[in-house]
Amino acid sequence: MKPVRLGILGLGTVGCGVIAVLRRNADEIARRAGRRMELVRVCARDLSKPRPVNLDGIEKTEDPFAVVRDDSINVVVELIGGVRPALDLVTAALASGKHLVTANKALIALHGNTIFRQASEKKAMVAFEAAVAGGVPVIKTIREGLSGNKIQWLAGIINGTGNYVLTEMRDRGGSFEDAVANAQMLGFAEADPRFDVDGVDAAHKLTIMASVAFGIPLQYDKVYIEGINGLDCQDIVHAAEFGCRVKHLGIARRSGTGIELRVHPALVPQSRLIANVEGAMNAVVINGDAVGSTLYYGMGAGAEPTASAVIADLVDVVRMMTSDPENRVPHLAFQPDALEDIPIVTMDDVMAAYYLRLMVADKVGVLAKLTQIIADCGISVEAVSQKEPYTEGGAVPLVFMTHKVAERKMNRAISQMEQLDEVLEKVIRIRVETFE
Amino acid sequence: MKPVRLGILGLGTVGCGVIAVLRRNADEIARRAGRRMELVRVCARDLSKPRPVNLDGIEKTEDPFAVVRDDSINVVVELIGGVRPALDLVTAALASGKHLVTANKALIALHGNTIFRQASEKKAMVAFEAAVAGGVPVIKTIREGLSGNKIQWLAGIINGTGNYVLTEMRDRGGSFEDAVANAQMLGFAEADPRFDVDGVDAAHKLTIMASVAFGIPLQYDKVYIEGINGLDCQDIVHAAEFGCRVKHLGIARRSGTGIELRVHPALVPQSRLIANVEGAMNAVVINGDAVGSTLYYGMGAGAEPTASAVIADLVDVVRMMTSDPENRVPHLAFQPDALEDIPIVTMDDVMAAYYLRLMVADKVGVLAKLTQIIADCGISVEAVSQKEPYTEGGAVPLVFMTHKVAERKMNRAISQMEQLDEVLEKVIRIRVETFE
Repeated sequence: MKPVRLGILGLGTVGCGVIAVLRRNADEIARRAGRRMELVRVCARDLSKPRPVNLDGIEKTEDPFAVVRDDSINVVVELIGGVRPALDLVTAALASGKHLVTANKALIALHGNTIFRQASEKKAMVAFEAAVAGGVPVIKTIREGLSGNKIQWLAGIINGTGNYVLTEMRDRGGSFEDAVANAQMLGFAEADPRFDVDGVDAAHKLTIMASVAFGIPLQYDKVYIEGINGLDCQDIVHAAEFGCRVKHLGIARRSGTGIELRVHPALVPQSRLIANVEGAMNAVVINGDAVGSTLYYGMGAGAEPTASAVIADLVDVVRMMTSDPENRVPHLAFQPDALEDIPIVTMDDVMAAYYLRLMVADKVGVLAKLTQIIADCGISVEAVSQKEPYTEGGAVPLVFMTHKVAERKMNRAISQMEQLDEVLEKVIRIRVETFE
Repeated sequence: MKPVRLGILGLGTVGCGVIAVLRRNADEIARRAGRRMELVRVCARDLSKPRPVNLDGIEKTEDPFAVVRDDSINVVVELIGGVRPALDLVTAALASGKHLVTANKALIALHGNTIFRQASEKKAMVAFEAAVAGGVPVIKTIREGLSGNKIQWLAGIINGTGNYVLTEMRDRGGSFEDAVANAQMLGFAEADPRFDVDGVDAAHKLTIMASVAFGIPLQYDKVYIEGINGLDCQDIVHAAEFGCRVKHLGIARRSGTGIELRVHPALVPQSRLIANVEGAMNAVVINGDAVGSTLYYGMGAGAEPTASAVIADLVDVVRMMTSDPENRVPHLAFQPDALEDIPIVTMDDVMAAYYLRLMVADKVGVLAKLTQIIADCGISVEAVSQKEPYTEGGAVPLVFMTHKVAERKMNRAISQMEQLDEVLEKVIRIRVETFE
């Protein structure tokens, strides 16, 4: 089957991320989509700039209209951001019958109603997962995954810069200005951070989420917006005394009289999972009448997380363009003839760190014997701790934390330990998972 | 357009939940799917049992084949669970060209390869979101939302009973047996809890997630399974001393030599979000090469959370059966002619609890004046706390936490407070969100 032909507008951070991931995962993506994607043309304002991806074999232009008017292109990917000239380009692309994938939250929040009307007339698809929460598929979740629910409310940390600044203020006790300066130094904030810390960016995303959650038109101008720029670190300290953290939230809620749409700082009880979302991470809590509260968490920005969402949209578009409609999404995600019989690893070969608890007799030299066995089996100890006996005069609990090792070696060590007279019970072994 | 005709097999907890939600949200669901769903026939082994939903107007039978062979039915929803007779019924339903929605994880994990082959031949859809993590759309996320990624690993708390038991053991310091008894009393564990605490249920779910993540055949027999039944609460205490919590995880990971598939207890550092998933809740962390680590959290079982996933699958099937393929999922989730112009609530009418910080002069009677204003405005105080001055002899910070009140009243109170001579600075006001 012929590849789907793509044109990309914009070679900034996200554009280059999309190209890098499309190339690196080309096989994996084709196995899922049932068809390859071919990047035909890219456009950037200044082609002479150095870029972190190889653009060999792709036509390059500084005229975006050369992309949107190229009749050989099936899907335009708009990654230039901002309203102008993006709106004109998107309009031209749809007018010529192309499908559109965009990461542009301002464009969708402010002009989505018009864009979607035009797309419906042209029977074109407009996909915009990357506009909200980076790589976390929040739009798909609301639009499809929770479609049986009456959504009651949603609330999210949807601006990573703002959350990074608040986390800094709490951890270091510094001022808002210091935290912003630090975020800028580390690349978590733009030179002009206003868009992020004033809440405008969050309001764009909230506008989009509220529309898909409640089935209302996009109405950015109705969002109440309060930034985090007025916050004093004293209030973060006082909030902690009440068991709360300060987070910048976008909230949409059905009330008795209508829909609340608001972006503002808020105290959140520390016991809530979302209060523990730190640094530049994003998270959205969605409450449906059937499902209750659900939470979605991940990186809300950055080249490859955003690329993840853009490419998921492309796969959706390609699956829809291509497949027998009754089999758009393959049952096991990959096309039936593209399943792979990768071997399953036996537990013996799994690498893990371990927690070990031994109940030992209180005698001289036990620890030496045990550490000798551990060393002989090629296991490295991270920590060891001897506890008080659980009962008076009883066996002494000894706890080891180890570094990663193949389970085969650990099994050998445990069986040798259990042969010692001083080891009074079966060795308790629990693996340690650090999610790294 | 004619409604889609449904038949439901099984009127247990989940079956009744699906019927309740389908009825309650019928309009909302039709606005999303573009077509109504009509529940034509239901089947249960014993129709004489009392059930919590009204079945008026639905044909009832005790013969499941009367449902799967009813030619007027488009979609069969299998909610009886277990392998027999579910497999025969599903086979018969697919043979007669019906689409299938199922919540049956054992059936998919053990017989999915055959079922999907048959479905593909018949061009039928088989949807099984409810088989994993209840209402949290994890299958859709892996299969569609993260389709641009090479998935590196996933790990989840995918059995609510087990997590409830572990949370109990930590919170109360009791034995495994006591925690299970307590879970049974509260309805979080079955009379025979083995399926849950032995890890078999988690292994079924892990088998399914691993297939859609890596594009490998379903192979339940290769999963390494260790339950939580051997755990001692001493180990939970020791784990805490190392900053870790004990969780029962299902893990699938790409290693150098193949795929690891394993279910076992593990120590997880408390700083990880997933370590803070408590009680009967589920959570899955998925790591993709582009998106990084993402987390999905919610209720993994129960009548309505499971119904949420079953109905999302039904909406997917109906959208696919019905729509112009290029517009299967409406841009704003709801059909363009089904958007609703619900009014947006002004901030004045929003109800919120508040954190207030006032900087006051250290004089007799200030607190009395302030609390009088608060009472006059109809605001109820939850807590008040007077802090040390930030600078020696400086203004005294006074912090109030209030109960919920309309913002209009709060604004009135703040403006009156700011008129007092003793209030030396602008009142700091931050809303409190408890996510309830």
